[in-house]
Amino acid sequence: MNIKTIKDYLFSLEQIPTLFYLFKWILICALIGSIVGSVSAFFLLSLEWATNWRETHLWIIALLPLGGFIIGLSYHLYGNSVVKGNNLLLEEFHTPKKVIPFRMAPLVLFGTIVTHLFGGSAGREGTAVQIGGAIADRFTKLLKLSNRDRRIVLIVGISAGFASVFGTPLAGGIFALEVLILGRIRLDAIIPSFMGAVFANYFCEVWNVSHTHYHISSVAEMNPVNLLWALLAGIIFGLVAMLFSKSTHFWSNLFKKHIKYPPLRPFVGGIVLAIAVYAIGTTKYIGLGIPTIVDSFNENLNSYDFLLKLLFTSFTLGAGFKGGEVTPLFYIGAALGNVLIWFIPLPMGLLAGMGFVAVFAGATNTPIACTVMGIELFGIEAGVFIALACSTAYLFSGHTGVYSSQIIGSPKN
Amino acid sequence: MNIKTIKDYLFSLEQIPTLFYLFKWILICALIGSIVGSVSAFFLLSLEWATNWRETHLWIIALLPLGGFIIGLSYHLYGNSVVKGNNLLLEEFHTPKKVIPFRMAPLVLFGTIVTHLFGGSAGREGTAVQIGGAIADRFTKLLKLSNRDRRIVLIVGISAGFASVFGTPLAGGIFALEVLILGRIRLDAIIPSFMGAVFANYFCEVWNVSHTHYHISSVAEMNPVNLLWALLAGIIFGLVAMLFSKSTHFWSNLFKKHIKYPPLRPFVGGIVLAIAVYAIGTTKYIGLGIPTIVDSFNENLNSYDFLLKLLFTSFTLGAGFKGGEVTPLFYIGAALGNVLIWFIPLPMGLLAGMGFVAVFAGATNTPIACTVMGIELFGIEAGVFIALACSTAYLFSGHTGVYSSQIIGSPKN
Repeated sequence: MNIKTIKDYLFSLEQIPTLFYLFKWILICALIGSIVGSVSAFFLLSLEWATNWRETHLWIIALLPLGGFIIGLSYHLYGNSVVKGNNLLLEEFHTPKKVIPFRMAPLVLFGTIVTHLFGGSAGREGTAVQIGGAIADRFTKLLKLSNRDRRIVLIVGISAGFASVFGTPLAGGIFALEVLILGRIRLDAIIPSFMGAVFANYFCEVWNVSHTHYHISSVAEMNPVNLLWALLAGIIFGLVAMLFSKSTHFWSNLFKKHIKYPPLRPFVGGIVLAIAVYAIGTTKYIGLGIPTIVDSFNENLNSYDFLLKLLFTSFTLGAGFKGGEVTPLFYIGAALGNVLIWFIPLPMGLLAGMGFVAVFAGATNTPIACTVMGIELFGIEAGVFIALACSTAYLFSGHTGVYSSQIIGSPKN
Repeated sequence: MNIKTIKDYLFSLEQIPTLFYLFKWILICALIGSIVGSVSAFFLLSLEWATNWRETHLWIIALLPLGGFIIGLSYHLYGNSVVKGNNLLLEEFHTPKKVIPFRMAPLVLFGTIVTHLFGGSAGREGTAVQIGGAIADRFTKLLKLSNRDRRIVLIVGISAGFASVFGTPLAGGIFALEVLILGRIRLDAIIPSFMGAVFANYFCEVWNVSHTHYHISSVAEMNPVNLLWALLAGIIFGLVAMLFSKSTHFWSNLFKKHIKYPPLRPFVGGIVLAIAVYAIGTTKYIGLGIPTIVDSFNENLNSYDFLLKLLFTSFTLGAGFKGGEVTPLFYIGAALGNVLIWFIPLPMGLLAGMGFVAVFAGATNTPIACTVMGIELFGIEAGVFIALACSTAYLFSGHTGVYSSQIIGSPKN
């Protein structure tokens, strides 16, 4: 065997191009991850500032219609090409047309901060994912990427945004693979997706941004009876997830039907929301609602908390405010789990934790990512309960979800 | 809205048939899970007995050729329809032809116990999965299941067998969905798969059968440098996984080519193995090798341990002994990880744990199931390292694996 034979053999191995592939994506993911992670850190700090400022200057909620108008106007003037948000990312993945306009990132960042500052009820994953996608897609032109590579870049953007905003790299990596097609996970971008998530999470934490910790204090014994209870809880979480999706679409259609001038939609929505907040007399149902989420693990909540949060959030987003659905979905699920102890004999913290991820799993159709997220947030001890709740919720949430551009790859059963 | 309208509306909901679907599969999974879990318990106890008996009566290894001949003869006389083992299950899933013969279960159980009693080097997941599949497929006739439902039943059998033999219900549930098609996970059987796994694991533990615990004592800090080391380790794990697959196929082909009468293959293989064990003077490389796996987390192993185990196992299985590949893959990976500390500056236990699941991920092309398994066995702290190692190993192990009937759904990159 001479040197040429050895050389030929080595070059015939599929591992050689794989090595180039790996190097390429290490570099791209490190670049995207460092930028998206840092922007996420800035976003999280701004969000914290906006929340604190609102909670100490409650009069600003009266200006929510104004905030809404500003957001509506900014999207009306500059944001027509990016107003579809997360759905635009999904559509570009499935049928690539043109590079995501960079303005998606600043517009959604601005819109989300304003939403939270003035007291809308919204999340933050939409923002993070859109920032991630818009930043990642810059590399499409810069590196002259093929359509195939561009799809991977979009996945990296989504995983980087998701992972860094929640501090859950594994869930972020799987979420980006799972959210694209309902009912299927394709593994061909698994390494870029995980690397984007891990890098972004690292670079977010470098800025000393910490994520909220939740704690399930006691997990029930795993036996057939408790398993059936977990399935029942999962069904309820799934139905509420469906209610949330339907309700967001309902408000959105209602606003679009009756108010033709887009900037007026969040303006009118803002009026209704501001009045509702003053009438109810609490800010518990606006913003991210993290204090209530933390409480739901060990304090009795009101039976209607989850429903009011569902109403506030679907209305806020339907009216055209910005931010995304996920943290409110955590809230809705955790608060719902918290009240399920009335008739499901599982520990409160466990039910709250199951609901936290399961309603989200049902609304976004990502049961595996949500199971892994539950494990990252609450530990492996509750893993089986979380997996059963997430997959049952997925099964019962219907074939639509909050992301209407998701393609159905496999029916749910 | 009268009662009829409400009734019509309710019956139009997709959740109603979903509820029937759920009830049906709760019952089927509970049935399959209780039987498979109990048989797994019996299998694990028998395996423990066989291992202990061999280690206290080492002369029996001299009879390994005889053991081999018995296994070979039993399959030659009664097992032609089931000799393909795990691959038969995969083939029946992809192109259903006829119900798996029940004899698959007793034959593989018997073959595996004999393999381990006389000192072959093999695993146990093949056995568990085949027992699970053969038992589960009984319900195909009994319940007159459609082809579609039968596929789900096979998935439940696989997940139940896998989960109960390793004590990892979440990994079992995902493994059964992930192993069928290389590069894709389909979620349509997610609930039956998880339920089969959870029930079987429960019913295995009811018999007081415990699973080995492994412990990663220290996890490295998550930073870009360590991340790159994890990727490098993953590449090595993947290449060794490929070496294992190729080497199993190599021995298998060699035996088939040169020895026409099948019962003679494990007989001749047994002679070589018995001589090798006496020549080396240790039983470290035969059987499941669990003591060495446990050691690899905190003691220095020999640099060649992983290679000898690879050789012993691929030779044992290629010759026609029974048991499966997974526990030896754990051994090979953990022992390889253990020696990687020579040039990869990560903690020994972490590298061993990463190798434990990553070589397995590469050889079976199931990176997500293996990541979840790593988290179930070692805790979430090492999760990111495990995920990176598993997915890199998956990427570098080539497009074949130990299960040759796996269909390629998506290329790896």
